[in-house]
Amino acid sequence: MAAKTPKKQARGAQESEQRKLGENAEQKSPAKDRLVGLGTQLTAQLAKGQQPTIEIPVRSLSNVEFNEDTQKLGIGEKTSERQFFNVAHAKKFLQTIEVAAIAKTQLLDSGKHASLRDVFYMAKRTIPGTKTNVVDDQRESDKALEDLELITGFSREQLHINANKMGSVAGRVVIEDSGDTIDWSRLGSGGWSIPSNVEEITFRKVDAKYVIYMEKQAVWERLHEDRFWQKQNCIIVTSQGQTTRGIRRLLQRLSVEHKLPIYVLTDNDPWGIYIYSVIKYGSISLAHMSEGLAISGVKFLGVTCDDVEDYKLERHYITLTDQDIARLKQMQEYEWFKDNPAWQRQFKMMLKAKAKVEIQSLSARGITFISDTYLPEKIKKAEYIE
Amino acid sequence: MAAKTPKKQARGAQESEQRKLGENAEQKSPAKDRLVGLGTQLTAQLAKGQQPTIEIPVRSLSNVEFNEDTQKLGIGEKTSERQFFNVAHAKKFLQTIEVAAIAKTQLLDSGKHASLRDVFYMAKRTIPGTKTNVVDDQRESDKALEDLELITGFSREQLHINANKMGSVAGRVVIEDSGDTIDWSRLGSGGWSIPSNVEEITFRKVDAKYVIYMEKQAVWERLHEDRFWQKQNCIIVTSQGQTTRGIRRLLQRLSVEHKLPIYVLTDNDPWGIYIYSVIKYGSISLAHMSEGLAISGVKFLGVTCDDVEDYKLERHYITLTDQDIARLKQMQEYEWFKDNPAWQRQFKMMLKAKAKVEIQSLSARGITFISDTYLPEKIKKAEYIE
Repeated sequence: MAAKTPKKQARGAQESEQRKLGENAEQKSPAKDRLVGLGTQLTAQLAKGQQPTIEIPVRSLSNVEFNEDTQKLGIGEKTSERQFFNVAHAKKFLQTIEVAAIAKTQLLDSGKHASLRDVFYMAKRTIPGTKTNVVDDQRESDKALEDLELITGFSREQLHINANKMGSVAGRVVIEDSGDTIDWSRLGSGGWSIPSNVEEITFRKVDAKYVIYMEKQAVWERLHEDRFWQKQNCIIVTSQGQTTRGIRRLLQRLSVEHKLPIYVLTDNDPWGIYIYSVIKYGSISLAHMSEGLAISGVKFLGVTCDDVEDYKLERHYITLTDQDIARLKQMQEYEWFKDNPAWQRQFKMMLKAKAKVEIQSLSARGITFISDTYLPEKIKKAEYIE
Repeated sequence: MAAKTPKKQARGAQESEQRKLGENAEQKSPAKDRLVGLGTQLTAQLAKGQQPTIEIPVRSLSNVEFNEDTQKLGIGEKTSERQFFNVAHAKKFLQTIEVAAIAKTQLLDSGKHASLRDVFYMAKRTIPGTKTNVVDDQRESDKALEDLELITGFSREQLHINANKMGSVAGRVVIEDSGDTIDWSRLGSGGWSIPSNVEEITFRKVDAKYVIYMEKQAVWERLHEDRFWQKQNCIIVTSQGQTTRGIRRLLQRLSVEHKLPIYVLTDNDPWGIYIYSVIKYGSISLAHMSEGLAISGVKFLGVTCDDVEDYKLERHYITLTDQDIARLKQMQEYEWFKDNPAWQRQFKMMLKAKAKVEIQSLSARGITFISDTYLPEKIKKAEYIE
């Protein structure tokens, strides 16, 4: 995967090794080694009569920073210690170790994967001799897992804990996954269903010039039926609404490992711009994972406020809600947008029009207008926003 | 759409003919013939100086009936006339004809498909010489399309208008779709992404004893990773939440064309039971399409209130909300549940416990407990509710 900082190179090495191991990933994995290392460290502290202590970078908003060099959101320098013999820390300490134990013993050891919800139920056991559960609410096990990502430097997917499964992909790409060879260009009208975890897939052949990620499944079905990926030699990817972590990692791997430009295609509204923002810069809530998920160089293909004029979509304007306006004003101030004239111009145009436009309004120009005219023109003229 | 038996056979015939036509469906299709017939009828009325009139079965709740014979929700005998020269009818009349024209000219003629949202934008044109749009809101074009389903006896999918795309499938099945041959058993961890419209897929090989449809993608990933479909020789299907029309038709085709039993697997809560209810009996809002979508003989596999006791899931109880309780009481009174002692017993048990249980609570018993123990036991003992 990715370049620049040492941490990132380490992650890349881990990943390619993990993928090479393939089916045997359960016998040996760097993530497992790291968890065992963590356990060894804690038992060593105990053996020496020391207090078991973990150092964790602070994840509160005050420690979320935009890194100008990497152009990604990240966690700052502040760290805190979590001590076992501390009334304020003991339960969180236990929860973190419990989730580490589940990842190691129940998942990595067996080569199995689990969902966040599964992990919650696995951790929800009563502490012997008490009436207290290790966790009572999924938010607790989720937080413990996020801490574990920070402590170990491994993503939850590498710890075999999966987020949501969503979305479809098509294009001239052949992959290997779980022992199957899968040709993304030969999967009928449905396409390949993207798994929640794409860490272990191997790209065998990637014959494409770029990737379009779109917010809406219906737009994907439009482009797929029109064989857009075949005519344009690209890869088309969709989730539905917010982009899943699995899809973000899939896009990142295509960007980093195959140097493919990634274009984002959404409605012309604050939500669409935020989808782009998260894919490119990372999200505030998962800032600690931005290095593993954010993709520099992603371009916003549309629908832009200029498109609304160029393609005469004004008659399909939908008035901005108060919430939309507040969201736009908030995004105008984001560090990664505030010195970007192209984006500032878009924000101003949308606020001035007080209106948003859906991508499917292009259908008013004809059912295949998006495939035959809009997208080829935009790509040919390099009309995107960065 | 339509009446009880004869028309249903007609639909079956239409479908298999349409599938045989395959790639040439755009040149000749029974759905297109029916739309042309509708237009011819209206122009003939005009030529004779008669008022253009369409007869439409009434779709209001008062005309939704549960048919004891077919065990499906359906539309009763009440019909109404829609007349063009009637101030109260003119706009709806126009909207229905507009949607019919879009389906015929822009979709069936070209062999293309569109989403409901696309059709809305295509219909949202200004009537020449006026400032009035044919439709201003998607609800209008959706309603017009539902009327058109009733008038023509063809589903929106047969008219090439697709609902949502969602969900994944795996199993020992080979299909043909859009010129590709797709083996559902060789698609890695992702599976085949189910399209919004499955009318034109052809089953080439179906080597499975039954189908499990599950509400949650995460449960599907669990069973898929455990190769449950391979060990049990079954097909596993999921959407996420409410079942899409595409998946309901896929299940129906597997049930009707391949005589496979269909099992439904959801949380133990009112929403899960309602998912089962819609798949089996049809939904009130789409009662006119129940014949094309509902699947008699579907069985509810779990999680049942008995499972909660048998598998000791009480410690994972989640208290029912007031809304849950109201929903359960409403379902108790549904015609298709009220004389069913097995379901009445379930409702009473859930109301007595005042609690629901999630399927993923089985993970507390071990990550593969659901695949290794729970489901094999349930199926072996035929512990399902009908």
